[in-house]
Amino acid sequence: MPVVVQTIPRAAPDTIDRLARAGAATVHEAQGRTGCLAARLRPIFSGARVAGSAVTISAPPGDNWMLHVAIEQVQPGDIMVLSPTSPCDMGYFGDLLATSAMARGCRGLVIDAGVRDVRELASMGFPVWSKAISVQGTVKETLGSVNVPIVCAGQHVSAGDVIVADDDGVVVVPCTTADAVRDRAETRMTSEEARRKRLAAGELGLDIYDMRPRLAAKGLTYE
Amino acid sequence: MPVVVQTIPRAAPDTIDRLARAGAATVHEAQGRTGCLAARLRPIFSGARVAGSAVTISAPPGDNWMLHVAIEQVQPGDIMVLSPTSPCDMGYFGDLLATSAMARGCRGLVIDAGVRDVRELASMGFPVWSKAISVQGTVKETLGSVNVPIVCAGQHVSAGDVIVADDDGVVVVPCTTADAVRDRAETRMTSEEARRKRLAAGELGLDIYDMRPRLAAKGLTYE
Amino acid sequence: MPVVVQTIPRAAPDTIDRLARAGAATVHEAQGRTGCLAARLRPIFSGARVAGSAVTISAPPGDNWMLHVAIEQVQPGDIMVLSPTSPCDMGYFGDLLATSAMARGCRGLVIDAGVRDVRELASMGFPVWSKAISVQGTVKETLGSVNVPIVCAGQHVSAGDVIVADDDGVVVVPCTTADAVRDRAETRMTSEEARRKRLAAGELGLDIYDMRPRLAAKGLTYE
Amino acid sequence: MPVVVQTIPRAAPDTIDRLARAGAATVHEAQGRTGCLAARLRPIFSGARVAGSAVTISAPPGDNWMLHVAIEQVQPGDIMVLSPTSPCDMGYFGDLLATSAMARGCRGLVIDAGVRDVRELASMGFPVWSKAISVQGTVKETLGSVNVPIVCAGQHVSAGDVIVADDDGVVVVPCTTADAVRDRAETRMTSEEARRKRLAAGELGLDIYDMRPRLAAKGLTYE
Amino acid sequence: MPVVVQTIPRAAPDTIDRLARAGAATVHEAQGRTGCLAARLRPIFSGARVAGSAVTISAPPGDNWMLHVAIEQVQPGDIMVLSPTSPCDMGYFGDLLATSAMARGCRGLVIDAGVRDVRELASMGFPVWSKAISVQGTVKETLGSVNVPIVCAGQHVSAGDVIVADDDGVVVVPCTTADAVRDRAETRMTSEEARRKRLAAGELGLDIYDMRPRLAAKGLTYE
Amino acid sequence: MPVVVQTIPRAAPDTIDRLARAGAATVHEAQGRTGCLAARLRPIFSGARVAGSAVTISAPPGDNWMLHVAIEQVQPGDIMVLSPTSPCDMGYFGDLLATSAMARGCRGLVIDAGVRDVRELASMGFPVWSKAISVQGTVKETLGSVNVPIVCAGQHVSAGDVIVADDDGVVVVPCTTADAVRDRAETRMTSEEARRKRLAAGELGLDIYDMRPRLAAKGLTYE
Repeated sequence: MPVVVQTIPRAAPDTIDRLARAGAATVHEAQGRTGCLAARLRPIFSGARVAGSAVTISAPPGDNWMLHVAIEQVQPGDIMVLSPTSPCDMGYFGDLLATSAMARGCRGLVIDAGVRDVRELASMGFPVWSKAISVQGTVKETLGSVNVPIVCAGQHVSAGDVIVADDDGVVVVPCTTADAVRDRAETRMTSEEARRKRLAAGELGLDIYDMRPRLAAKGLTYE
Repeated sequence: MPVVVQTIPRAAPDTIDRLARAGAATVHEAQGRTGCLAARLRPIFSGARVAGSAVTISAPPGDNWMLHVAIEQVQPGDIMVLSPTSPCDMGYFGDLLATSAMARGCRGLVIDAGVRDVRELASMGFPVWSKAISVQGTVKETLGSVNVPIVCAGQHVSAGDVIVADDDGVVVVPCTTADAVRDRAETRMTSEEARRKRLAAGELGLDIYDMRPRLAAKGLTYE
Repeated sequence: MPVVVQTIPRAAPDTIDRLARAGAATVHEAQGRTGCLAARLRPIFSGARVAGSAVTISAPPGDNWMLHVAIEQVQPGDIMVLSPTSPCDMGYFGDLLATSAMARGCRGLVIDAGVRDVRELASMGFPVWSKAISVQGTVKETLGSVNVPIVCAGQHVSAGDVIVADDDGVVVVPCTTADAVRDRAETRMTSEEARRKRLAAGELGLDIYDMRPRLAAKGLTYE
Repeated sequence: MPVVVQTIPRAAPDTIDRLARAGAATVHEAQGRTGCLAARLRPIFSGARVAGSAVTISAPPGDNWMLHVAIEQVQPGDIMVLSPTSPCDMGYFGDLLATSAMARGCRGLVIDAGVRDVRELASMGFPVWSKAISVQGTVKETLGSVNVPIVCAGQHVSAGDVIVADDDGVVVVPCTTADAVRDRAETRMTSEEARRKRLAAGELGLDIYDMRPRLAAKGLTYE
Repeated sequence: MPVVVQTIPRAAPDTIDRLARAGAATVHEAQGRTGCLAARLRPIFSGARVAGSAVTISAPPGDNWMLHVAIEQVQPGDIMVLSPTSPCDMGYFGDLLATSAMARGCRGLVIDAGVRDVRELASMGFPVWSKAISVQGTVKETLGSVNVPIVCAGQHVSAGDVIVADDDGVVVVPCTTADAVRDRAETRMTSEEARRKRLAAGELGLDIYDMRPRLAAKGLTYE
Repeated sequence: MPVVVQTIPRAAPDTIDRLARAGAATVHEAQGRTGCLAARLRPIFSGARVAGSAVTISAPPGDNWMLHVAIEQVQPGDIMVLSPTSPCDMGYFGDLLATSAMARGCRGLVIDAGVRDVRELASMGFPVWSKAISVQGTVKETLGSVNVPIVCAGQHVSAGDVIVADDDGVVVVPCTTADAVRDRAETRMTSEEARRKRLAAGELGLDIYDMRPRLAAKGLTYE
């Protein structure tokens, strides 16, 4: 039943941008250490930190036809998230598709498979988090679906969920809880800033977090 | 029967340089999506794009003796391609061997094993595509062969085949078909350039490639 | 029996700094091709070359409590070396812990697990060699030990051993043999420099190392 | 928010047993080639073919506390399905837990982590599909959840979904579609039986499925 | 250029059967420690030891169409050898295809991808060496080739080469050298039998092979 | 400095045999969840459960010469433990070496590399725990050491340490603590037996171990 869902929810643009500023690690903590995609997804160049609404793609292994279909569904600020239906390292995406995606306002691609033309993608400033970089091209023979719920790199992703990605990896935030997570992330950033200053001044986490009594209670001994 | 074959065919220098300009992904497409080495081979630094005639090396695991033998066979414009006879991550190659290889005009190394001194190799601008980076050194005890046909990272490579390598990976083009592949690659680059402009202007691949009827025929539905 | 050993031996600061200048590959050769940690440990940014005395940490999988304990034991010039008691890719360490470690004079972290905040760690110039980069956070529930002998990435490391790390990987030098290894490493650097000049001038390793007779004796033939 | 959901839907026992008889591969085909868990899950002994209602477990890495909690929720005919919140190979489950699970009527365990006591589990006839076999024990320090939706080995599993597992692997069937999938699987078994006879008699798939015209149309040539 | 080559060379049936009796490890030694396919290929059940002429199959990832085409080319005594053009773990082959292959006299399958119905394949006694066992089915959309030279699991295999496979793995012997390898294998078996008796009687390899002087010359010391 | 240490400590034969009866998982628990070798070591056939004194072997990758040297050092009841100095999957050991080892009273082999002739080893009843099964043979060119301390599969092993191995994996017990671990293991077996009966009768671990209050205190809720 290959299908393209054309209407999806999206979080508020301001929420999405503020989640991007918080970054993947902070957002992950802010939603109770949940939602991080498998560490095999790595950025093809370093330094990008983006967030966007997920346009999800379920694609057959070695077949990138659905990327063309998905790009039509992209709105400015979206991030495409592709999961193959069986593990695959082939290069689904390159500079032509990136040109098209950027023309639609797409902010990046998260793909549990391979990409290519990475030098060109880096020059274009189109960020990709992928499992592999591979020259190997794909075919356009078998359908998949767009904007259906998928599992990507071990996490459930629904269309419209907020994707936050940077050099640390990729985190998914359900659309419905994005505002709450944003608030907790910003609170966390503030309190981290205060702790950073104390740590930089030489105070120990052992004292700041009052860990010594609990360590002793658990049985830690010093020699 | 360890042997060094001293005479090998080579493609025309102009063909080789034009294949380099096309890059690995385009060349791979131009020869019918064949010839790409396994994605486990990665560049030790980004940005290099080279092509050259393969000087092949079949070496025992953990033994780099044949690299010294191979360097004598290198002519300006060649690329060394080493495959261990059993999987191995050890560091076969470092800055001294690179100094020697560069002095012979070698353009790079493709190795389904490990290398080291990667900071120095990067400063020297000697590109390497390897399976691993490893401090672990090798011995010089057991013979191998030079310029015999090998399988490297899943592809058959004969001495004199053209190797095209960049940030996307490594592709091998048989010496005998190099001119034809070069022509198809350049035709492809021209047509891609035209499509890139249309895609950048916001046209969709769905329309440029007239995909909609075939998608519908296969049963894709829109909700 | 979780324990923190508070007094550890350390090599002379001058020895440590000279081992850093030699680099991991040379030090590895200088101690008879021993002591290199598994190649799965990779630097989170390139270009760092450091050496320091090991503060060892044995930690449960997914639990970074002992890092807080270990930082108190760090003296200027030390490197923390963490091995989980079972394989784990989670992100044990980020920018707050790095801020604290730098305030103590820590020169880096070697960890057979994951880290995060890698963009921030790179800006701070705090080098890390890790098995993974992962957003996934850890808990603080179960004790481990500090400055006990550990196995990290396949090598035995005792507290106070000298760790040498750069883009090639990580090598451990026992504290007791550090001076001897330093001397052999420096001798090796001198002799390599001489050979580098000859190789750059076009001489072959086959001749410099007089390999031809031994190759022939082993049965290598030229066609 | 660690939680134990105590009431879950279950498919009809007759449907579950008939899905077991169909086996994982047939059921997978019958639901449109969807629902198979990653091939890294392997049976600890061969020959078992079971189906049951999923009691799902989300557990921290290296912590098997929630298995004790889950066993209380097991009803006869259920299968426990455990996914760690971060990749882990440790041995979460052994003969004591299996004794308890069997006493509750549990039909097996699917776990994207490790188990131990496999010789005893085989003697007891308690089937397990796991990612690893590992001596390494776990702790009981951190909570998880029972009967919440999880992603296990790349597939979404809700409590009460039907798990079908045999030597080929593990497939999940949503509770709501179990009857329809059962029917399609049985239809498929019947038609396969007919084809098996023709194939055994020497007829070719090329003819039975009338593939020759389509092969020719795609361009296959015979030499 | 998808093609089916219909005429292939084959070694003499007697040679093939005697290579089977020698087994993979002995044949591998007898041809100078060459020709063994990567160790990731494992038998789906233990105890089989077969040899046959290779019917080679180059197939797209996730597409098993060419298996139907290949079965028509099988003659009694052949073994099918399939390599996907890009790494793939999906289940290309099951009991229906095995029924068809056995009806043609096929002795087994070597596949650098996945298979399924392994319980049924074991009951039928149809041996398979595969990289994976996977429920995941494949499509029939894209052509490949039959009886062209392929690289399978790191080794070059031409149609008609002799495949020898058992619990140790898979070895390929070029058709043209099969008789010579057979003779060397049988000589080796005879001499091994003699050595086995001496070793069973308690003599040491150190003495039988006169290793002590060479060990001492290399510098081995006893404490 | 290749060396063979000829005199090693050994635990009492009765202690060793009683540790074998306890099995790897129980012994691992009895020494505080320490000492288990990496789960990549798997038995080549199932059902063996042995213990013995370690004769350690440090060998170069792809070179099995030191196995011949080690066999001379084996006393009845010993187990050989081999670690390559760099990761390697090649087949170091087969039926001839096993014949020799059995003639010396060797009880098994633990090897973080590959073995072959596994069908013959199974017939002979010689148990092996290995990382790989591989046809690929090795050379005899480079020395290693026997009975020096090694790291094998992530654990430190000294000559004379007790190795306990079964279908769950491999555990090392320091020679000096073997008696104490034996006692704790036997105590554990007794208490497990009592708990097994209660669990088989339907009592829950939640009640037997009085977990409910602590679960509630940590915040577990029931819906």
